[in-house]
Amino acid sequence: MRIDILSIFPDFFSGAFEHSILKRAKGKGIVEIHIHDIRKYTTNKQKSVDDYQYGGGAGMVMTIQPIDDLIGKLKSERDYDEIIYLTPDGEKLNQGICNQLSTNQNIILLCGHYKGIDQRIRENLITKEISIGDYVLTGGELGAIVLSDAIIRLIPGVISDETSALTDCFQDDLLSPPVYTRPSEYKGWKVPEILLSGDDKKIENWRQKQAEERTKTLRPDIFKDK
Amino acid sequence: MRIDILSIFPDFFSGAFEHSILKRAKGKGIVEIHIHDIRKYTTNKQKSVDDYQYGGGAGMVMTIQPIDDLIGKLKSERDYDEIIYLTPDGEKLNQGICNQLSTNQNIILLCGHYKGIDQRIRENLITKEISIGDYVLTGGELGAIVLSDAIIRLIPGVISDETSALTDCFQDDLLSPPVYTRPSEYKGWKVPEILLSGDDKKIENWRQKQAEERTKTLRPDIFKDK
Repeated sequence: MRIDILSIFPDFFSGAFEHSILKRAKGKGIVEIHIHDIRKYTTNKQKSVDDYQYGGGAGMVMTIQPIDDLIGKLKSERDYDEIIYLTPDGEKLNQGICNQLSTNQNIILLCGHYKGIDQRIRENLITKEISIGDYVLTGGELGAIVLSDAIIRLIPGVISDETSALTDCFQDDLLSPPVYTRPSEYKGWKVPEILLSGDDKKIENWRQKQAEERTKTLRPDIFKDK
Repeated sequence: MRIDILSIFPDFFSGAFEHSILKRAKGKGIVEIHIHDIRKYTTNKQKSVDDYQYGGGAGMVMTIQPIDDLIGKLKSERDYDEIIYLTPDGEKLNQGICNQLSTNQNIILLCGHYKGIDQRIRENLITKEISIGDYVLTGGELGAIVLSDAIIRLIPGVISDETSALTDCFQDDLLSPPVYTRPSEYKGWKVPEILLSGDDKKIENWRQKQAEERTKTLRPDIFKDK
């Protein structure tokens, strides 16, 4: 998979893509991530990428030209499955969308800033708008990193132990059961006896019950769907 | 506000907190962010921070000792309003929670990895569990950055033009109206006439109507709450 990220803060991504599973995915050649500086594509003398909004009001709006030129250049080089704009009023990201996007070959992620991007970009260039949650961030960069992370880890070969991803929260519409590791007792806090029993069948039943109870209590909205 | 972030990948944060509004908030002395390497607090010889899970199964679990010692050290130095664990089965983050958390003085954000942290940490040390959305990430680091960004920008003085934050999506349970900037025509794509009219009252009405219509269409779940 190839991911092209369009941003006016290209250095924002330095830490996030150099660690853990994402680094391994890049190292194995499973994923290519290209960060593009939108400002490099502006044709105006001041190198500005934003302007006041029509009709007045606080907050600047990102202009069409540099984004249109950059997307046009990328599209002339290869076909893209999706051109995604990260925005709080987009479709809410969930594990199902992540599963689906993880099968794409090439995607573009556009990061907005300030009051957002000119609406005409959204109407004419963007194929999908995604929100990572019902809250506002300083920019789309974090949304792009979150989306990349969530989909990259689902590509076969990225996580070494695939069973681990398959038993994640949400993959079967259930929250995960609680997990414990050594020591069996710490400051008087004990591991549930059953997990020390060695009885695989009983443990499996206990975990299933815990997952169902936790989902029912914490997330009745997911549980009702079953 | 002081934010202490506990992670086994402390370098993950290098890009995110050095840019844009967050950098300014730190520069102005409004926010202090301290990243702590959990691995430095482990007392075992191998410096390991995780172990196999009791009862078997794929995926490692983060051990209690280094996290308990690190949290204990921080709590001995100052009082914390919340000790938050980022986890997909936590309370779903929204703008209301962000508003509330932005009034805190000191918070700890604990980032999990692999299969998660030992359940006894959650039961005995954590005061709040937060999920940034219904999807699974490689670790809690991204959740911690997202949460920090969403709350820091709400602290008075961080965003220069406070009106801009007040007219954000969700602050009044409505999505934002579309925004436009120059040029008024680009490749035949035009700005709505009304925004060029100079009639402030009509523009205000148009924006309110657009916001309501967009919310009704895109997010009937929010709109119904009104």
